[in-house]
Amino acid sequence: MDLAVDLSARGDRATAIYRALLGAVRGGRLTTGDRLPPTRTLAQDLGVSRNTVALAYERLVAEGFLESRVGAGTFVAALATLPVRAERGGVLRPRAGWTFVPTQVSGESPPPPYDFRVGIPDASLFPYDAWRRLLTAEVRAGAHHPGTYAAPGGHPELRAAIARCIALSRGVSADADDIVVTHGTQQALDLVARVLVEPGDVVAVEDPGYPQAHDVFASHGARVVPVRVDDEGLVVDEVPPEARVVYTTPSHQFPYGPPLSRRRREALLDLADRHGIAIVEDDYDSEFRFVEGPLETLHALDRHGRVLYLGTYSKTLVPALRAGYVVVPESLRAALRAARQLADGYGDPAVEVALARFISDGLFAAHVKRARTAYAERRDLLRRELDHRLGEVITVVPSAAGLHVTAVFADPGVDDVALARACAAHGVAVDALSAYAVGPGRRSGLVLGYGALRVDSIRPGSALLARWVEETVPSR
Amino acid sequence: MDLAVDLSARGDRATAIYRALLGAVRGGRLTTGDRLPPTRTLAQDLGVSRNTVALAYERLVAEGFLESRVGAGTFVAALATLPVRAERGGVLRPRAGWTFVPTQVSGESPPPPYDFRVGIPDASLFPYDAWRRLLTAEVRAGAHHPGTYAAPGGHPELRAAIARCIALSRGVSADADDIVVTHGTQQALDLVARVLVEPGDVVAVEDPGYPQAHDVFASHGARVVPVRVDDEGLVVDEVPPEARVVYTTPSHQFPYGPPLSRRRREALLDLADRHGIAIVEDDYDSEFRFVEGPLETLHALDRHGRVLYLGTYSKTLVPALRAGYVVVPESLRAALRAARQLADGYGDPAVEVALARFISDGLFAAHVKRARTAYAERRDLLRRELDHRLGEVITVVPSAAGLHVTAVFADPGVDDVALARACAAHGVAVDALSAYAVGPGRRSGLVLGYGALRVDSIRPGSALLARWVEETVPSR
Repeated sequence: MDLAVDLSARGDRATAIYRALLGAVRGGRLTTGDRLPPTRTLAQDLGVSRNTVALAYERLVAEGFLESRVGAGTFVAALATLPVRAERGGVLRPRAGWTFVPTQVSGESPPPPYDFRVGIPDASLFPYDAWRRLLTAEVRAGAHHPGTYAAPGGHPELRAAIARCIALSRGVSADADDIVVTHGTQQALDLVARVLVEPGDVVAVEDPGYPQAHDVFASHGARVVPVRVDDEGLVVDEVPPEARVVYTTPSHQFPYGPPLSRRRREALLDLADRHGIAIVEDDYDSEFRFVEGPLETLHALDRHGRVLYLGTYSKTLVPALRAGYVVVPESLRAALRAARQLADGYGDPAVEVALARFISDGLFAAHVKRARTAYAERRDLLRRELDHRLGEVITVVPSAAGLHVTAVFADPGVDDVALARACAAHGVAVDALSAYAVGPGRRSGLVLGYGALRVDSIRPGSALLARWVEETVPSR
Repeated sequence: MDLAVDLSARGDRATAIYRALLGAVRGGRLTTGDRLPPTRTLAQDLGVSRNTVALAYERLVAEGFLESRVGAGTFVAALATLPVRAERGGVLRPRAGWTFVPTQVSGESPPPPYDFRVGIPDASLFPYDAWRRLLTAEVRAGAHHPGTYAAPGGHPELRAAIARCIALSRGVSADADDIVVTHGTQQALDLVARVLVEPGDVVAVEDPGYPQAHDVFASHGARVVPVRVDDEGLVVDEVPPEARVVYTTPSHQFPYGPPLSRRRREALLDLADRHGIAIVEDDYDSEFRFVEGPLETLHALDRHGRVLYLGTYSKTLVPALRAGYVVVPESLRAALRAARQLADGYGDPAVEVALARFISDGLFAAHVKRARTAYAERRDLLRRELDHRLGEVITVVPSAAGLHVTAVFADPGVDDVALARACAAHGVAVDALSAYAVGPGRRSGLVLGYGALRVDSIRPGSALLARWVEETVPSR
């Protein structure tokens, strides 16, 4: 056989032979049923040991490219030649009413030079070395009955660590048993929707609001009703009393900004009590508080088990961890766990235990403290820049926490979507506020994240942004 | 302050002081508003450096137990005393029709001495060292735009590796773009149900069959119709033609055993074409084949894009990886990706890339080969033991692949559920076949896994099992 093997390449010789044979099969020079030379012969041809050739053959047999027949030799296997592809445009169609298209995600393209995108934390602040150490300690044969299937609610150690942590940092009173661990806020919302929403049920969401919340409730058949937001947060008076669920972001209204006022918090709980409504409290980035004395969570004010409290580690740590949780009233506990089991079984126990240790060892609190300092500096600078450069045309909405600020145009006629597009074309990624609204809450403005943006990029980024605002906003 | 600190304990002194103070707060000896001694004073009292005390204070401040007021000192914070727990039995109830309770999972209790439970692979065969090396290489600051959000279909490298792998090992023709990565078969089923099933749609499942498939389709409002299984697999003639989806396990009918015959495969595809049915082919453990010349997959026989092919690494590697995939016709590709985004966003990129490398480097094929040898030995021994000890009362169902065998009682009146319970009480975990049926497919028998059972436990385990069968089966 005329087999070209480059034995001078880096790596071991068996791998080089393996690659050459695989190339011959893939390239069609060897096809199904072809007999390979005996290992002894090929070894002599190539000037290597017979064992080296045998290793390459064995690997190709294990992978199904070759097959060995006793007494006859080694042959190219029937499946090695890739099957002819069927006509697969496909006749199947999604169910009626399926209108969801995947929204573009932030990691698909390289980050822009000036990245004001919302909800992206600074991964360079995350203590990867400590995390890797904790994680690798859990990736081993003896850990967590690794061959078996784990509990859908999450590892007990992680549930206990979360309960202790949020009792302190957020005043949320919960036992480990009240917590269902999820792969993040998105999964928490999905589980809640499964358990609470029947097709046709009304779900009230904030407008402007979190598009993925809107979509996930709609995908479970809910009639999603957008409710206006003002400077006290959700306008509770406008929540339809027939709602089965209200979704709200009381610490830092997403994306508009203000916290839900104390008065509104009480009104919302009162409304929920009177009409049997479930409240989903999404506390997505409140660990990054920049003022003293945060308002009590709805969960802490709730006296009848009406509030489901959602937290995530996507913002405080990194999204790639895929970790969040929902604190669930006892009356829904079994249902939520069953929903998790139906949805995807359970999470990776190694990640869950490593995260539990990360929290218990104080690394989480230390990280949040460090990150808060870094974000506070960026936030202050960004607000000053916006005031200084654009104070005549936009107003920054007051907020108390989080990873972004929102600014509203004095002229409601500004086309913020066109502006965001123009900025993107010049290396400044920024979100249009109106893109987050579907109904009554539409305002023209900009949503500016500072998690992905280093402090020394804020001034030049703001200058570029201001230039495009000047080009676009007619009233100036 | 009278603070008892054990400075002789292992670990650093700041941590000892931190623990003592935390204990005082938790134990109620320090309460909200209490002023702590200045660091200098406490340091003198304890005979440590001032810096050591300051470190402990700082950590407690970061965690929210203490608060520092400029010029006034350090105080126990308002939230440090855990909030009073609300009455949370809770008034919320799951939606009408929500009947799912989490089924018991295999990892919740220590494994029984003789573990014939089904679907549990032997984690001790898994090359943890190689896996840990691959995984830790991906857990670092620069990898995968870690602060951003990834694509819901899965990492491109993993999708490409899966496509190459299943083309060879299973004859499934797919590009990377045809694949949606999931957290396992459960999530794949859930995504398929979301995209295809409207409330009231008929979904045909095998009976006996996989209970979690039944439940997840039912949870999305499907009318689930169980269809009988015989020695050629699913009885295709009895599939209701109005079905929107047929769920089937053609390589190794779960849990009964036989592969779907070639004749039935063609009949099923024909039925699907005539009535516009989608076929969900769950190929859950077919990598462990014990006969030559496996039947072609339904996916390979499909010419119109009617088959969704599901694979999992829970059986071939370990369930804790939480990795599986669905090969989806082009006409459903965008819908499946959107469903994944709605469900939980996307998976952990570090795990996905590590798994891609594990496959591409040949470690997956080598592992499957090694595991197949180990399982073949256990399987042969178990079948011999069953024939030898229980050949008069049970018959082993022929099968060609997998991690379990099924045996049927000659006497259909045997109470297999009671038998399984009696065995469990004596250290032998085994599943009753009838527990997997909901309708026409009920047979009395035993489902015996050999993934979790070492080869030297098979003989004594079988002996114990035989003893309890003798006690229970009246006809003997």
